Amino acid sequence: MYILYQSQPSGNCYKVRLLLTQLNLPFTTIEVNIFKGESRTPEFLAKNPNGRIPLLALPDGTYLAESNAMLGYLSEETMYGGRDRWERAQILQWLFFEQYSHEPYIATSRYWRTLLGQPEQYQDQLAQKQTPGYAALGVLETHLQQHPFLVSDRYTIADIALFAYTHVADEGGFSLVEFPQIRAWIGRVQNQPGHISIEVSDM
Amino acid sequence: MYILYQSQPSGNCYKVRLLLTQLNLPFTTIEVNIFKGESRTPEFLAKNPNGRIPLLALPDGTYLAESNAMLGYLSEETMYGGRDRWERAQILQWLFFEQYSHEPYIATSRYWRTLLGQPEQYQDQLAQKQTPGYAALGVLETHLQQHPFLVSDRYTIADIALFAYTHVADEGGFSLVEFPQIRAWIGRVQNQPGHISIEVSDM
Repeated sequence: MYILYQSQPSGNCYKVRLLLTQLNLPFTTIEVNIFKGESRTPEFLAKNPNGRIPLLALPDGTYLAESNAMLGYLSEETMYGGRDRWERAQILQWLFFEQYSHEPYIATSRYWRTLLGQPEQYQDQLAQKQTPGYAALGVLETHLQQHPFLVSDRYTIADIALFAYTHVADEGGFSLVEFPQIRAWIGRVQNQPGHISIEVSDM
Repeated sequence: MYILYQSQPSGNCYKVRLLLTQLNLPFTTIEVNIFKGESRTPEFLAKNPNGRIPLLALPDGTYLAESNAMLGYLSEETMYGGRDRWERAQILQWLFFEQYSHEPYIATSRYWRTLLGQPEQYQDQLAQKQTPGYAALGVLETHLQQHPFLVSDRYTIADIALFAYTHVADEGGFSLVEFPQIRAWIGRVQNQPGHISIEVSDM
């Protein structure tokens, strides 16, 4: 049994729930209240010295941090991972794009606006996130003009990683009105077998 | 022949030069002047829509972006990659830690202070980077108290990824005086066969 230490509305945590569900792997979740500092307690830091969620406890009791590392680990030798070296390279490229060029703008804006519910307090920071956040959406849109999914025209963990925060981009103040390819891709991802919404926790 | 589109002082580019050299793979470099916007020209964007360096052209002419995706690709089935699923998972964990919790603080500070040479102009932003940057160094220091290298007690691409900006952290205003384990690890990385310094470009 996998145990996912998580915060339910976090897109990074949702990625892992979604893949575990689609792989039909039994798991349970433990809610960590990051607003109360529960990811920075000595007990949690002993599990993940970086003090972040999600954190995945494997069935043997070892811990793995970093949502996209979990996607890579869980998808190995499955239909959601790369089938050859070049597919794996392209998947990695998208996973690092997500964590460096997408998440810090779109997810962080969503955190301030919707999870903390303090759009006025973070007004200046939110304004700074607009241009790079829309640039990331532009990269996605351009790619999806030519491809139904991000890698090899099939649904992989690259789609899971990018879907997590893109489909709730409006909660970060990013409109998808001008991104028709992204909207169509969101529909294709939501139509995958075993898809669950971000509201669903345990299997 | 690999072609690396790069900026010589960039740690992200250095990672790839270092691994290519240690793998004894012939490569050449093409300097992209990011200060003059050369990574945002239509010609470059056609190669990498995200407009960033490094960018690696494989011998067959296809392009791969994201430094850590290049490390993963190039190290597959070599002594610098993971030998089993759990090693690969831990390597991925460190690679994502580097891009999310380390590089945005330490590399960005170095860029403002040393590459742009404008520490006064970026004074406020530099101050904001101090706490999370030192937190990342603390995570590294703690891990290295128990391990000579980051994964499985041997030198892997996880060490290459973290070494790139850690060994020049002082150029970002981060002192390693209080991090003896990191300083010892830097020496071990520099003693690896085929090591090159960040100043060395082509083979």
